[in-house]
This record gives sequence, C-alpha cells and structure tokens, in this order.
Amino acid sequence: MSVGFCRVSSVFCRFSSVFRQSRFISAGSARFGSGCQERLCRPLLSGDVDRFGGVTVRDFPPDISEDEFTELLRVSLSRWRSDGRVAAWLHVPIALSRLSAAAARHGFSFHHARRDVAVLSLWLGPGEDRLPAFATHQVGVAGAVVDESNGKVLVVQDRNKTKNAWKFPGGLSDLEENIGETAVREVFEETGVRSQFRSLLSIRQQHRHPGAFGMSDMYLICRLSPLSYRIDFCTQECLRCEWLDLAQLAKTSDTTPITSRVAKLLLYGLENGFHNIDLTMEQLPAVYSGLFYQLYHRRLPEE
Amino acid sequence: MSVGFCRVSSVFCRFSSVFRQSRFISAGSARFGSGCQERLCRPLLSGDVDRFGGVTVRDFPPDISEDEFTELLRVSLSRWRSDGRVAAWLHVPIALSRLSAAAARHGFSFHHARRDVAVLSLWLGPGEDRLPAFATHQVGVAGAVVDESNGKVLVVQDRNKTKNAWKFPGGLSDLEENIGETAVREVFEETGVRSQFRSLLSIRQQHRHPGAFGMSDMYLICRLSPLSYRIDFCTQECLRCEWLDLAQLAKTSDTTPITSRVAKLLLYGLENGFHNIDLTMEQLPAVYSGLFYQLYHRRLPEE
Repeated sequence: MSVGFCRVSSVFCRFSSVFRQSRFISAGSARFGSGCQERLCRPLLSGDVDRFGGVTVRDFPPDISEDEFTELLRVSLSRWRSDGRVAAWLHVPIALSRLSAAAARHGFSFHHARRDVAVLSLWLGPGEDRLPAFATHQVGVAGAVVDESNGKVLVVQDRNKTKNAWKFPGGLSDLEENIGETAVREVFEETGVRSQFRSLLSIRQQHRHPGAFGMSDMYLICRLSPLSYRIDFCTQECLRCEWLDLAQLAKTSDTTPITSRVAKLLLYGLENGFHNIDLTMEQLPAVYSGLFYQLYHRRLPEE
Repeated sequence: MSVGFCRVSSVFCRFSSVFRQSRFISAGSARFGSGCQERLCRPLLSGDVDRFGGVTVRDFPPDISEDEFTELLRVSLSRWRSDGRVAAWLHVPIALSRLSAAAARHGFSFHHARRDVAVLSLWLGPGEDRLPAFATHQVGVAGAVVDESNGKVLVVQDRNKTKNAWKFPGGLSDLEENIGETAVREVFEETGVRSQFRSLLSIRQQHRHPGAFGMSDMYLICRLSPLSYRIDFCTQECLRCEWLDLAQLAKTSDTTPITSRVAKLLLYGLENGFHNIDLTMEQLPAVYSGLFYQLYHRRLPEE
C-alpha cells in the first residue's frame, strides 16, 4: 500500500494533539532538511530501543483508523530501517486490535498475546528472522505420595478417560508456581491428602500434546511424603482414589506406561533407599536478576 | 451495550449472503416461535462444541464492522449461555483483528496468539474460570560435551554478557524439538563440534526469566559425547570457546553456579561412572495419540 505525502500530513493534523500529548515524535529536521515545513512534522511512532537493536512501541493514538495507522507505520518502518533497527515490536491493547490488522499489511504477525494485549513482531535485520520465540511448553506435575510405613502410594483414576488407568494425581502448573508446589497443590485438590515435596523422579517431554493448543508438554513426577492420610477425593476430576501397594502398581496393566515405570523406580527406592532414584532440589540465586531458581540433579555422596 | 432487535435484523440482512455461504446459523423457530418472521432469522455465530462443553468459532463474516460484530456476538453469547456452554473460544484472523476489540466489550480476552491468528476466550460456566492456560515455559538446553579420554569438557563464554563466565553451549528449543536434539544442534552451531546425546543431568526452573516475555524458563543440561573435536566457534555468539579440564571448571570462580554444580557432577561421573549422575532417556508410545514421548529418569540396576 502506497499513500502520498499529503495524506501523511493529514493524518498528522488530525492527530496532532494526540501526538503532542503522548510519546509520538516527528522526524527531525536534520534528516529531512529545513526547507520543507510538511516534512518537518512528519509523524512517527515512538518506541524504546532495546540492547539487541529492536524498537518496541507501546503507545498508540487511540482514535486512529486502520488505514491511517497503516500509513503511520509505513513511515515509521522506513525510519527504523534507515536507523538500522533489527526488529519492531508492537504491544497492541485489545481495544485497539484494528491496529494489528494494519500492522499485518506490513508483514507483522502475532508473537504472542495475553489477557488484553497482543504483541506483534517484525524482523527488520539482515537474513532470516532471529527473534526469540514465545513459551513453547506447558508444564504438568504429578505427585507420587509414598507411605514408607506400609509401602503404599496414592493413586487416582480420572473421571473423563475411556480407559480407567491408575495414575498419580497431578495437573498443570500455574504461572510462576514451582514444580514441587504444583505437585503438593494438585495432590491436595484431587485427593484431600496433604503432603510435602521430597524429590523429582522423572521428566517427560511430549510434542503436539492434546490440550496444549498446538504446543508441547513437559510432565514431571515428584516424590512426596504424606502429612495426612484420609482420602477425600474430588468427584469432579476422579472416579476412584486409593492407597495402593507399590508392588501391585508396579505389576498391574491397569495403568499408564509412565506410571508403571515410576512405580518400579519407587519400589526400588523403597527397598534400596530413595537416594538411588531421587533428583534433589536446591535453590540458587540467579546471576543478574536477584531472583532465585530451583535446580534439580543427582545428589553427590560428598554433599 | 444493548441494541434493539431491529438493528440485529439489519446486521443479518447486510450479511445474509455471507451467512448462507459459511457456517453461520440462525436461531431455530422452535425457540423463537413461528409468529415472528424477524426472530426466525436472527443470526448467530456458528462453532464447534468440544467434549468439555465449550464452543469454538473459526469463521467470521469478513466485512462485518466492530459494532455489528459486537451485536452478533451478544446474541450468540445469549444463546450459548442458555444452551449451557461453559466457554467460548474465538479464533480471529489477524486481518479481522477489529473483531477482537468487539469481543473484549463482552469480556473476552486473549488466551494466546501465534503468527496470523489470535485466540480469545470467555468462561461462561458457573464459578471461576477453569480454562486451561497456554504454554508457560520456554525450554533452553545446554550440552556438556565430555571427552572421556582426557577429562576435558567443551565450554564457551558469551559475547553479550558483562561477566565472562564459562558455560556450556546451548540455547532455546525450537517448537517440537526434543531436548537432546536441541543440545546437539546448539553445540554444533556455537562451537562447530559434532556430538551425540548420552543423558540428562539437571533441570532448572526459573520464573520471570529475563527474555522470556514474562513467562518461565526450564533449562536442562545434557551430557554429550564428542563425535568431532575441532573447534570452529560462532563469533557472533561467543567470545571464547575451549576444551577445559573438568577439574578446573569444577574449581574456577569464572563460571555460573549451575555450570559449577554440573561440572562437579561430571567430574564425579568421570571418576566413578556416569551411571551415578545420569538420567537416561527412553521413548514410549503415548496412550491415545499414537505419538511418542521421551521419558527421563534414573536407570535401575536390573534394567
């Protein structure tokens, strides 16, 4: 789409009060020359430049039309390219979603969207798009609560499955929830049993996971110790819930392959020491952010 | 927003040819009575009902305005609620993004967006929103390539970091890429060294990770065996690349805490057998989809 200069000016005139109030800028006289008054005030989107050379725009004229924004973005992109920017990011509020359609005409596509903001991106640098992708995995966590006093483990059967297989209670992690926290929460919500985190036992990666919206699934099984024993299971989610002999779970065909594997692991741990099967967790400070992270690996004998 | 019945009719009349061609339906006479011709043809969005009782709309009248769609959606939501639907999903093409703004007026928000489609959702059922969230984690993988013949490991220093710390080469998984594949690919891209996957060593979970767009990061370190030894490192990404003594990496302060931990693990494995530190991988069939997944856990002595 190519629109003449006069129309750009009219866009600017209509929205000049908006541009003055917010963070929109006009191209400087140094570049366009002082002889042309119209070019002096040619409007541009204003954004923050990141350390990778990308520009991010978060403020938009609230009343601009799709067509007017298409033109404003054309002029801005031309400037960003000549300034050597390698990428452009637009954080478009849902109420201004028509601007996303306008951006698509210039090659922008959705990078991601959450709640009331869509983030669109366009690679401007040389060669192929090198922008980092958005999150690719959902994280599910199950908890194997082992009662060491009698060799029993807490298992459930899902209500909504065609095959009634025994499995460990679990579910999806909420955003910013640690693996162990998800296991303890899900076990309580599904079974009514309180427990505490002991170790990580296994990790499963599955792509094109049903229910993951085309993305992948990381499924982790933790070992938990019971803090209470009385079952009060969620009838919306579960058909059955029992304390089952680990030896029986390790042998039965009424279970999933991964549950069977982990039951065998747990049985070995029960008989030979859980240190044989555990990945222990330690919390460490992140290098730059001041935040902490959880690291899971084999404990060494000398630790 | 409340608009009278006549306006609904006019929306329908303007788009009647669209509705006939595509999958839009009108509310049945059984519900609205046969005495009212206008009500007979009251337009509704048409969608697929899933097994959880949600309705998903993928087809929209291409020329409908924001205001007209707001009204069409109002009538459709009323019908879906009376039909007991628990959720509504709209898959809005980027060129029709103005419809997302209209949907937001009815409480819809972005569930996720990728490339040229935004998916909006609205919980219609009783109680709080129980819709599954979109992916929450990016997955990064590093590869520790250990040369068992001389106890050296392949390490790099990032070009773009303020502290020049030794670390294992690695990077983000592409969508549908397995953990081991990412490790081998990233090691080759960064260092020019070819390698093969041996085991998983550690998992780190970090929330509010810088560069993860507000989401979380799962960082996995794998043990790899070298298939070639000559270093030809990527100068865009790396400042240095070396085969370093494992014992030296385990002691140095010029590294990150996680690299130091894993170096100590690897040194122990080198001296006492890698079976002490490895999580081995096996591929298993998924229960329902016919696909396969990768499962990582401690190998048992009897296996």
